[in-house]
Amino acid sequence: MHPEQHISHQFDTELEAIKSHVLAMGGLVEKQIEDALTAIIDADSELAGEIIAREKQINGMEMSVDEEATRILVKRQPAASDLRMVLAITKAVRDLERIGDESKKIAKLALSLTEEGPAPRGYFELRHIGAAVREMLHDALDAFARLDVQSALEVVRRDKTVDREYRSATRELVTYMMEDPRSISRVMNIMWALRALERIGDHSRNVAEYVFYLVKGKDLRHTGLDDLESAVKSWS
Amino acid sequence: MHPEQHISHQFDTELEAIKSHVLAMGGLVEKQIEDALTAIIDADSELAGEIIAREKQINGMEMSVDEEATRILVKRQPAASDLRMVLAITKAVRDLERIGDESKKIAKLALSLTEEGPAPRGYFELRHIGAAVREMLHDALDAFARLDVQSALEVVRRDKTVDREYRSATRELVTYMMEDPRSISRVMNIMWALRALERIGDHSRNVAEYVFYLVKGKDLRHTGLDDLESAVKSWS
Repeated sequence: MHPEQHISHQFDTELEAIKSHVLAMGGLVEKQIEDALTAIIDADSELAGEIIAREKQINGMEMSVDEEATRILVKRQPAASDLRMVLAITKAVRDLERIGDESKKIAKLALSLTEEGPAPRGYFELRHIGAAVREMLHDALDAFARLDVQSALEVVRRDKTVDREYRSATRELVTYMMEDPRSISRVMNIMWALRALERIGDHSRNVAEYVFYLVKGKDLRHTGLDDLESAVKSWS
Repeated sequence: MHPEQHISHQFDTELEAIKSHVLAMGGLVEKQIEDALTAIIDADSELAGEIIAREKQINGMEMSVDEEATRILVKRQPAASDLRMVLAITKAVRDLERIGDESKKIAKLALSLTEEGPAPRGYFELRHIGAAVREMLHDALDAFARLDVQSALEVVRRDKTVDREYRSATRELVTYMMEDPRSISRVMNIMWALRALERIGDHSRNVAEYVFYLVKGKDLRHTGLDDLESAVKSWS
């Protein structure tokens, strides 16, 4: 084997390894969202405790991927497209870590609700928006793994829907609290949990957006959905 | 001049340039927080509009620093300590951009309050926590510019205080809403604004934490304050 091919082969192996670590982290984070939703809906304090304990593991995964990325950059000094992959990975794990944070917040709100008793409203919205953002994260990770621009665009589209549904749920819960002020404290826990879910949607959208950067070398964050749609159309 | 010195001199110039762009972005973001606080406290819808319009400029600054960083990595392939600086810069501008986002959210809440009329409570807390996080961001940027570990540690410490004050303000406002349910919708605007300020504190803390990484090459995010204090002490 030619020495350069040898080096390039080792580099590919390292790049595949770091990618698989990101996806493993993503899998754990998906589980955290799922468990956080179960914990708050079923008022399961034991499960909430497990989620809170597991957050450390996610933080550790972020830092270890970050170290791996730095090591690759120092040792391999990759050229443009591989460099973009390594940079996108360090950004994506940051979003995943934030999603872990938000899941932990939901677990803490679940603990408050097991103490105060269930809220009289908002569980339907939690379930609905929760399912939507879980799917968004799953599809964003999938798009990232397969560098699939179309799936990434679909995630960005769904973030718009989630934002709309979140706003409407918030308005409805404010109205409810005005009618039944004794429920305010409990309903507020649901409001904060919905807010955490909405942010999980934002972070999943970010993960999807790195796909555009990876595939086209273009930073399309902060691009409106319409412009994004036409950009993606122009590539295919 | 020796050619290597020449290249290294150019590189230093580029590194100084990107650092000064980060600080310029930081200055603009500080102004956004300041104006957002004025807009919500004085119910100034014109100022709120200006903040919302200026957010695009901040997004543009983030992307342009990111491009600059990528260009430096490709062209210079810097060794460990300069590489860390470039990576820390791409992370820091992301936090600054998020602070810009949160300021825009406060500006939007200011617009709601100019329509609905002022909230009966919460302005003292806005002012107090607002001043604290503005100072945190200012000091975090300063610590970043001067690579000052002690100042960075001080920012992390203050984030603890802000979190505590935020929780106590939230509890108080929930109690108030129960006593005066007609105010719920207006008080909620203040609650969301306080939440945005608390997140600005978190992002400022992140910026401060990159200083540990830059100075010591150690990733001390997710380290408890006590352990952080002893780590910093052991370095001096």
